[in-house]
Amino acid sequence: MISSFIGSNEGNWLVRSTSAIKGSDFPIAERMLRIDNELNHWKVEKQVQWQLNGFNSNMRYTNRNERKELDKTPSILNLPENNFAALIPIKKNDEWWQLTQDERRNIFEEQSAHIGFSLKYLDKISRKLYHSRDLGEPFDFLTWFEFKETDESLFNELTDYLRYTPEWNYVISEIDIRLERI
Amino acid sequence: MISSFIGSNEGNWLVRSTSAIKGSDFPIAERMLRIDNELNHWKVEKQVQWQLNGFNSNMRYTNRNERKELDKTPSILNLPENNFAALIPIKKNDEWWQLTQDERRNIFEEQSAHIGFSLKYLDKISRKLYHSRDLGEPFDFLTWFEFKETDESLFNELTDYLRYTPEWNYVISEIDIRLERI
Repeated sequence: MISSFIGSNEGNWLVRSTSAIKGSDFPIAERMLRIDNELNHWKVEKQVQWQLNGFNSNMRYTNRNERKELDKTPSILNLPENNFAALIPIKKNDEWWQLTQDERRNIFEEQSAHIGFSLKYLDKISRKLYHSRDLGEPFDFLTWFEFKETDESLFNELTDYLRYTPEWNYVISEIDIRLERI
Repeated sequence: MISSFIGSNEGNWLVRSTSAIKGSDFPIAERMLRIDNELNHWKVEKQVQWQLNGFNSNMRYTNRNERKELDKTPSILNLPENNFAALIPIKKNDEWWQLTQDERRNIFEEQSAHIGFSLKYLDKISRKLYHSRDLGEPFDFLTWFEFKETDESLFNELTDYLRYTPEWNYVISEIDIRLERI
């Protein structure tokens, strides 16, 4: 089941800003359409500015205790009050992908507290992770977040934190696209 | 990058046998074609008996010590002397997929010695693992093995072992397709 994020002049999300945090520039679209969990959708329209594809999957690093904490604030997408969103495509370097599972877990959580630090934001920020690397896509992950306009500063706090973690030393491309539902 | 295994009356692998080990029957094809790492291939031919798709990925459970052992016998596919092959599609139950990473690892290796037991076979049996579940496919994994005709009994020893491990209690469908290169 593949999901697509398509930037063009169509879609119910207005693109407010497109920032290249790391790596090269990224084309700017006026609007964005998110198509969740479709089969056989591999049609790239001629007039799109960009199309990013990925799949949602089982969790790769979370242990049982963390899962119990995470389950207290399940992510619900498409809530009408969450009128702001962010799409953050990320690519990590080869060194990361040559690490073994235990080494990646150690950097992700024991060194960077990716789950531990994020937990306190999750009652206000809904999110969904899509995997892209295995599809031969330009990014490894597409991270999608929805929140209230008034909570954007909270969201910025979270991204500011993550960008200074040891895990982020392995990130070689990161685009930060901010959107508003229309 | 998606790979496909296509059963029809074409392809360079002759299907010697098709056995449903667990779960429902599976259509029988005369020959099989393996298409490795292609993009945009989602075309199902009208006359194929079956088509299974998956992607090769980073290792999900292996730790550094195991990786060092595994690296001693790198899998090389398409060796002319390896004229026999097996394609074994597997589906695990929901209980497995609800387990966390640490719980799955514990069953996979600490309880079942999936890597530890397999190691001694890997100088004679080349293999490649493809992930299918995230694509909405009927199976979760496609496991592909190549070996010499004279080593098939060794291969049977390995599958016999794995089918009696605690990990295999979570397997709800398994097909065992044996092939010969022509």
